[in-house]
Amino acid sequence: MTPLIFSPQFALWSLGTLGILDLIAASTNAFNGALLARRPDHYKHFTVMGIVLLAFVGGIGGGILRDVLLDTVPKPLLNPWYIVACFGAAGLALTIEYYSGQRFRSGLFAFMTAFSLPWYAIVGAQTAVDRHLGYFAATLIAVIATTGGRSIIDIACGVIPKQLVRGENFVLTAVLTAALYLVLRYTFGVDVVVSTAIAAVFGFGFRLLSQFLGWEEFEPWEPPPSEAGEKPRHGLGDDLLAEFKR
Amino acid sequence: MTPLIFSPQFALWSLGTLGILDLIAASTNAFNGALLARRPDHYKHFTVMGIVLLAFVGGIGGGILRDVLLDTVPKPLLNPWYIVACFGAAGLALTIEYYSGQRFRSGLFAFMTAFSLPWYAIVGAQTAVDRHLGYFAATLIAVIATTGGRSIIDIACGVIPKQLVRGENFVLTAVLTAALYLVLRYTFGVDVVVSTAIAAVFGFGFRLLSQFLGWEEFEPWEPPPSEAGEKPRHGLGDDLLAEFKR
Amino acid sequence: MTPLIFSPQFALWSLGTLGILDLIAASTNAFNGALLARRPDHYKHFTVMGIVLLAFVGGIGGGILRDVLLDTVPKPLLNPWYIVACFGAAGLALTIEYYSGQRFRSGLFAFMTAFSLPWYAIVGAQTAVDRHLGYFAATLIAVIATTGGRSIIDIACGVIPKQLVRGENFVLTAVLTAALYLVLRYTFGVDVVVSTAIAAVFGFGFRLLSQFLGWEEFEPWEPPPSEAGEKPRHGLGDDLLAEFKR
Repeated sequence: MTPLIFSPQFALWSLGTLGILDLIAASTNAFNGALLARRPDHYKHFTVMGIVLLAFVGGIGGGILRDVLLDTVPKPLLNPWYIVACFGAAGLALTIEYYSGQRFRSGLFAFMTAFSLPWYAIVGAQTAVDRHLGYFAATLIAVIATTGGRSIIDIACGVIPKQLVRGENFVLTAVLTAALYLVLRYTFGVDVVVSTAIAAVFGFGFRLLSQFLGWEEFEPWEPPPSEAGEKPRHGLGDDLLAEFKR
Repeated sequence: MTPLIFSPQFALWSLGTLGILDLIAASTNAFNGALLARRPDHYKHFTVMGIVLLAFVGGIGGGILRDVLLDTVPKPLLNPWYIVACFGAAGLALTIEYYSGQRFRSGLFAFMTAFSLPWYAIVGAQTAVDRHLGYFAATLIAVIATTGGRSIIDIACGVIPKQLVRGENFVLTAVLTAALYLVLRYTFGVDVVVSTAIAAVFGFGFRLLSQFLGWEEFEPWEPPPSEAGEKPRHGLGDDLLAEFKR
Repeated sequence: MTPLIFSPQFALWSLGTLGILDLIAASTNAFNGALLARRPDHYKHFTVMGIVLLAFVGGIGGGILRDVLLDTVPKPLLNPWYIVACFGAAGLALTIEYYSGQRFRSGLFAFMTAFSLPWYAIVGAQTAVDRHLGYFAATLIAVIATTGGRSIIDIACGVIPKQLVRGENFVLTAVLTAALYLVLRYTFGVDVVVSTAIAAVFGFGFRLLSQFLGWEEFEPWEPPPSEAGEKPRHGLGDDLLAEFKR
């Protein structure tokens, strides 16, 4: 049995720089998940337990999805610090919200989520490459690792996932960051630290600019409203006849 | 690192006949997913990025679910053509919708989805058997591989999954096709090509007939409306007392 | 190919005591899932096929999620009896509901679900430990194995998952049962049968008491209603300015 975090094996410093960065990104996303659960458009009379669960989904949901798709035991389950961090982030979010109200959120905190977004994208892309996936699949994995937790939170709260609607280039930031990293690292053979730094700075800047300037992914024209829903009760035969008659 | 699709290793013809068929089925489902996202009952002001993501879910979501359940790296992630095909299908769907409106959909396209449905069912059942699952589990995997992507699209769009409501034998077609294939192939030892052909023709015909003639899975009587929701605030004790008194 | 259940390899008695208990728990949850699909707050004009599918989700959904997260082929897919049991439970639920109405549910049946809840928690925790996860991750896996199926049912039915709202300590029971089992078994080295018995009795009693006495997880204060939804159309810059001005 893997021991508790109190054992030397799981000393926080044994995580190394990368591990600490990953833990900060997870905590940031967990914190964000807890705040999200309390926002009026998501709030559905959640209990504290529910908020903690949503913080877990936000913090380690994307990483778990990534590793399940890559057919490995999810890394956030292998180190107890992820679970402790998510738990702490949920508690901190509730405490801060209690004392400050939600004014807090829209401002300074957006910087931190803008940091964790490219970080998850780069880690996701690299993990996919380590499992022998190609550029396209690695970019897809990066998007899922980065934004997957958010979509589960949105669906659980009865909200349309942010990936699908206007959200200040939420998905596009992940796509571009992962693609930039992969091209630098594997097409041009740039050093891993330099590739990471360039892609992270780009992703961070692109996301912040999108939020500052209100850049959005393109939403196309409204679909024609005429046609009714799923089940035309007249059967397929009539449709085909109508089409042939045209 | 697995190279890009421009490398000879991923020449389209290296997929073989089965690979091409599978790619066509994925493209059809991706195309369908993109159209679905634009249909009035599903449409929720999706961006182009959102529509592309939903096309991915429709095109490779079922195959990914299948392979995750069978504990392997998802096959649609191992070959870049799947991702290219989904992307192209989404673009094509938006283009066609722009020029033709949605009249297009109900007719000729139903033929193609009626083709991809039994195809996915057979591939799903065979993949499950290759991983040493039995008849029942293989049929269940076939249903998930065939219809799983659709349920994710429906849920993401805030719609009740088509599997659960009347949908012209959507699930039953997958069940019967997979079961027919498995019985032919493994109970009677029929050749794999013949088994596939018979099951595919059956599934294709059954699905088309269901759509033409409006065959539906049975929807039972309305449940009694009296009893209130989830949480009877009077506690379990009262319920039991009431039951014993009867 | 793994043969059908009629073969001696899958004789019901070959499951052993633990296997039979697990099968009973799965059947109970499948039965519960089918009844849930018919309850007014969940009912959405489901077909019989839809009810059967929801019974599968309830019965084996949690176990499948558990094994997918632990990177193994889901155990409920390896033995055909799980699928047969879920199918039978769905049929039984529909039959009973037809003859008795839903009065049946709130009473005696709550005992059986209160039994299957700690059972899944203990099995989930033990399975996680067998895959070398630690206390915290094993408890998280136990919660997912116990309650994951229910969340999929709720989401598919367009209902907020019961984990997130007041539900008579639905999640807390799983957490406490798994933690108690793990501490007894691995911190104090208690025999596996004794640990299981103590944790199961505790979980069963705690859940029943919660239902009898209406114990609930804590639901915090209402969030401040003022702040608008997701996308402040004024951009991040204004928010930061406002914050600095304070």
